[in-house]
Amino acid sequence: MAQAHIKSGEVVNVGPLGNQLAASTTTALLKAEQLEVIRLVLHAGKTLREHRAPGEITVLCIEGSVEFSTPASTTVLNKDDFLHLDAQVPHALKAVTDSSLLVTICLPAK
Amino acid sequence: MAQAHIKSGEVVNVGPLGNQLAASTTTALLKAEQLEVIRLVLHAGKTLREHRAPGEITVLCIEGSVEFSTPASTTVLNKDDFLHLDAQVPHALKAVTDSSLLVTICLPAK
Repeated sequence: MAQAHIKSGEVVNVGPLGNQLAASTTTALLKAEQLEVIRLVLHAGKTLREHRAPGEITVLCIEGSVEFSTPASTTVLNKDDFLHLDAQVPHALKAVTDSSLLVTICLPAK
Repeated sequence: MAQAHIKSGEVVNVGPLGNQLAASTTTALLKAEQLEVIRLVLHAGKTLREHRAPGEITVLCIEGSVEFSTPASTTVLNKDDFLHLDAQVPHALKAVTDSSLLVTICLPAK
């Protein structure tokens, strides 16, 4: 069953899923006016093909190891690694091991 | 010396500071067009008095334990606890133990 989005002020634990990671899937934590936050689960070998976000994003690796590619470079994100990406920058992901990432997307002003 | 802001696509580790936490201070990780990200360090007993952010924010507790108060409630954030707050909601913080938090602020459209 889909988890309800968290409300303003509501606390959710986003720590490593650990031994539940293999059986977990991506979850939308919140979608508000300005921000959307997703816990992205990507199992070993799986990819997210190149795409662009409408606004700036940040990515925090909660657990695992993921190749993060832009036209400029490919870098590996490990636990606690964090990056910011300008709006509309193409990027693709490939999980090296089972991984989860906290992805924050800034939505364009309406 | 102040740490330079990270550039789009640049990776920074935001894991627990551990035994460096006591000697650490708050750091601005990035200030872009839409997003500002801060690693807020609050030592035990220290407070951030009530204030409002111009846009939505998210707060992730990296380590430690912090009382997070809004007019609606006071909650304690521990490691890996995450919350979102609507724009302009008054909030105050008090560190129970030495703590660091990843604070993401969505800036108002220019």
